Amino acid sequence: GLFTKEVHAEAKQNLDTIIKNFMAEPVTPRETLEQESEEMRVKMELMIMGIQAEFCRALEKEENEFPTKFKVDRWTRTEGGGGVTCIIQDGHVFEKAGVNISVVHGNLPPGAVAQMKSRGREFQGSTLPFYALGISSVIHPRNPYVPTIHFNYRYFEVKTDNGVHWWFGGGTDLTPYYLNEEDSTHFHSSLKKACDKHSSEFYPKFKDWCDKYFFLPHRGESRGVGGIFFDDVDYPDKEKAFQFVTSCAKAVIPSYLPLVKKHKNDGYGLQERNWQLLRRGRYVEFNLVYDRGTKFGLYTPGARYESILMSLPLTARWEYMHIPQEGSPEYKLTEVLKNPKDWV
Amino acid sequence: GLFTKEVHAEAKQNLDTIIKNFMAEPVTPRETLEQESEEMRVKMELMIMGIQAEFCRALEKEENEFPTKFKVDRWTRTEGGGGVTCIIQDGHVFEKAGVNISVVHGNLPPGAVAQMKSRGREFQGSTLPFYALGISSVIHPRNPYVPTIHFNYRYFEVKTDNGVHWWFGGGTDLTPYYLNEEDSTHFHSSLKKACDKHSSEFYPKFKDWCDKYFFLPHRGESRGVGGIFFDDVDYPDKEKAFQFVTSCAKAVIPSYLPLVKKHKNDGYGLQERNWQLLRRGRYVEFNLVYDRGTKFGLYTPGARYESILMSLPLTARWEYMHIPQEGSPEYKLTEVLKNPKDWV
Repeated sequence: GLFTKEVHAEAKQNLDTIIKNFMAEPVTPRETLEQESEEMRVKMELMIMGIQAEFCRALEKEENEFPTKFKVDRWTRTEGGGGVTCIIQDGHVFEKAGVNISVVHGNLPPGAVAQMKSRGREFQGSTLPFYALGISSVIHPRNPYVPTIHFNYRYFEVKTDNGVHWWFGGGTDLTPYYLNEEDSTHFHSSLKKACDKHSSEFYPKFKDWCDKYFFLPHRGESRGVGGIFFDDVDYPDKEKAFQFVTSCAKAVIPSYLPLVKKHKNDGYGLQERNWQLLRRGRYVEFNLVYDRGTKFGLYTPGARYESILMSLPLTARWEYMHIPQEGSPEYKLTEVLKNPKDWV
Repeated sequence: GLFTKEVHAEAKQNLDTIIKNFMAEPVTPRETLEQESEEMRVKMELMIMGIQAEFCRALEKEENEFPTKFKVDRWTRTEGGGGVTCIIQDGHVFEKAGVNISVVHGNLPPGAVAQMKSRGREFQGSTLPFYALGISSVIHPRNPYVPTIHFNYRYFEVKTDNGVHWWFGGGTDLTPYYLNEEDSTHFHSSLKKACDKHSSEFYPKFKDWCDKYFFLPHRGESRGVGGIFFDDVDYPDKEKAFQFVTSCAKAVIPSYLPLVKKHKNDGYGLQERNWQLLRRGRYVEFNLVYDRGTKFGLYTPGARYESILMSLPLTARWEYMHIPQEGSPEYKLTEVLKNPKDWV
């Protein structure tokens, strides 16, 4: 009747208003988003597209002296779905900044199933249709006094013979080149605040998980000062888990932007730049040797490797036997990487 | 008797004369080398130490304008054995040049056994004492017209419940930044000549193996123009397999040094340098994501990661969506990386 038509028109208008602010047209057609608006995968897609736009605009604002805008690539995947990759490369403030959305679906490839089994999940079914949605971002600033940030929030849905399995995963972590205890505390406090809204158990648990995950065994050191990391979150229920992930994603800007503003004009020289490049070498080591997301991506046929590898810095350096001088600011960082501490 | 004593003295003098030319004292004590001179692991250690010295001296000669010498690190491994790592870093001709010997023994760690099982080997035994000896080298020149070379020759011995298993592995391959067909042909001809002395079947088989091994699936391209690669060589017999590996190792200098001499003073600009750094990014990707030796090393507890990671370039670069212009010299290289060809 007329009433339904009006409601429908209003819903469509609301959706159009939301989408207008996105960096690109969502991956899923508007009609599907509207019709399946109660599905978690739709809520998640709209949430992450919103976060991408907010975060990219906040970063662009920091490039105000020499305006640089994000390059936006909307791509599709032959096997189903696609994504929106936003990149600043060689900016004034950000040497490389990538914010990627991917919304893919299809049947789980055998490699992915094996990867999941190794984590204790075993799915029964011959085709295993799945949806995987996520936002993933790595920001490598130019100034060595501004830390690198990484965050990733994702939702999986797999249809098996025993029903639909779903879970959320994600995290936000900080990789400074020089240790600033005040910054680390600010960063962790922001994440804790986001977690505490949902459960007081989350922050300590996910902070610890983060320390364990972002660790390079061969060097015996953490990638950075950590943050939060979680996977397999399907509690207390789907809606509440989504609200938790949304809070975490919304905490990225307040946790990080103040550090950018504070340090982007700090003075530095060749020594600080060289140290930054060496630490970026460690970042590459972690991502290519250990990071599950990167490996999962690279081993998935048809994956868009340019979007997976956008996490790598513009430049990195490896020196044989580089050991910072005891007591130096560089040394001070490595000490905290070897002995993760509590920041809040 | 007197005769034995004289023979012994002569053998000792011969050994001293050989060792005098090495970059450092061998890993195995002289007395053991002398007493076990008929053991393949002793022959192999002396051969690779000799190759290391010859190769390092040949490279040092190329640094004649601004003399740079190899830094020599002799290291020991808590679990048994050790090595000799020789490095030039930030030289005039060689941006980073590493030539590493490792001579390790002990009991096979579970991770290593699993790695070997995945290659079709399954060893019976609770302790699995092993010897692993090898020379491994990566040379990253400064001039983008001089290719990067990598070679590795190794010998394994494992004592199982069913007796001692042994085999050789190795290879030499070339990674140019700009394609020079004459250089590729010279390089491959030198390797073919070394192989042909032992069997006419070796070069085609090991050239093909090399093309398959040094391949980045996610980019759909080879690391370079190939060379030879082999593993599990235990034929026709131990001595002849050793002679074959020795011929390959001795072919490194004649295959590569002419290319260094020819191009080390070629003119180049920022564009060529940038392209070289991007290609070095691909080199890092291969070594950290796919290379079996690197992964084997990094996952081995107590491994000397500085010697494993010396293969990484001093500087590498990753640009999002860098695609060389069709018809450009950079494009010409990528075409041959996508379609490996026969060079001899």
